[in-house]
Amino acid sequence: MCAAPGDSAEWLDAVAWNSEGLAPVIAQEAGSGQVLMLAWMNRAALQRTVELGEAVYWSRSRGRLWHKGESSGHVQHVEDIRLDCDGDTLLLTVRQDGGIACHTGRHHCFFRRLAGERDSWETVEPVLKAPEAIYGE
Amino acid sequence: MCAAPGDSAEWLDAVAWNSEGLAPVIAQEAGSGQVLMLAWMNRAALQRTVELGEAVYWSRSRGRLWHKGESSGHVQHVEDIRLDCDGDTLLLTVRQDGGIACHTGRHHCFFRRLAGERDSWETVEPVLKAPEAIYGE
Repeated sequence: MCAAPGDSAEWLDAVAWNSEGLAPVIAQEAGSGQVLMLAWMNRAALQRTVELGEAVYWSRSRGRLWHKGESSGHVQHVEDIRLDCDGDTLLLTVRQDGGIACHTGRHHCFFRRLAGERDSWETVEPVLKAPEAIYGE
Repeated sequence: MCAAPGDSAEWLDAVAWNSEGLAPVIAQEAGSGQVLMLAWMNRAALQRTVELGEAVYWSRSRGRLWHKGESSGHVQHVEDIRLDCDGDTLLLTVRQDGGIACHTGRHHCFFRRLAGERDSWETVEPVLKAPEAIYGE
């Protein structure tokens, strides 16, 4: 990722943060183009992401900044950051360390597919590494 | 898209709708893998999407179901529907009629790129068709 922007906050103000100060962020894998996950950022998370060149999200469950990979080692190296037409959604292009974006040990989080004929969500992606092996028992 | 699931609502219950009854939906283009847009669905929108085989979102600004392409003709034909690990985000694979997903007349909505050295969002995608030509004056 490029050098961090300076003190100007205009680029951060350009994001239409929601009432909770958050914006959804899509992480897409460089090369494969696969959509890995959707997470959330606040202003501080986006600023830190740009400074580090690595994805830093806002964990809504933990109520704190979450440097993706801090526990798992599965860091996302950010190559590109896009903002959509409404300014309320971000798209990151990332290189995924370990080839695993999902906490279930799968390559990406969208591993359930709607099987229409069965009215159900079917798991269609393998676990590449057991979560216990990623995060410890 | 496949035939519509029957009356069972289990597959709809499996989605972790937020406090407003919505879930974010990523539309990704079949073939190119390009992320076209992020929109929202409620239960009725997802059900209708599956019935039609075309993307139907919930328009938060208009407070009603929005059959994508109803004004523009830029319908999204749905080939695949995925649910993520937390059950709170959907991913559609779509064929985009007209090659234009964005209301600005661009191929996709993520046409602003963070230019780090300039601390600003730079428009990096062309308008393919003027909005006036899409929606009328």
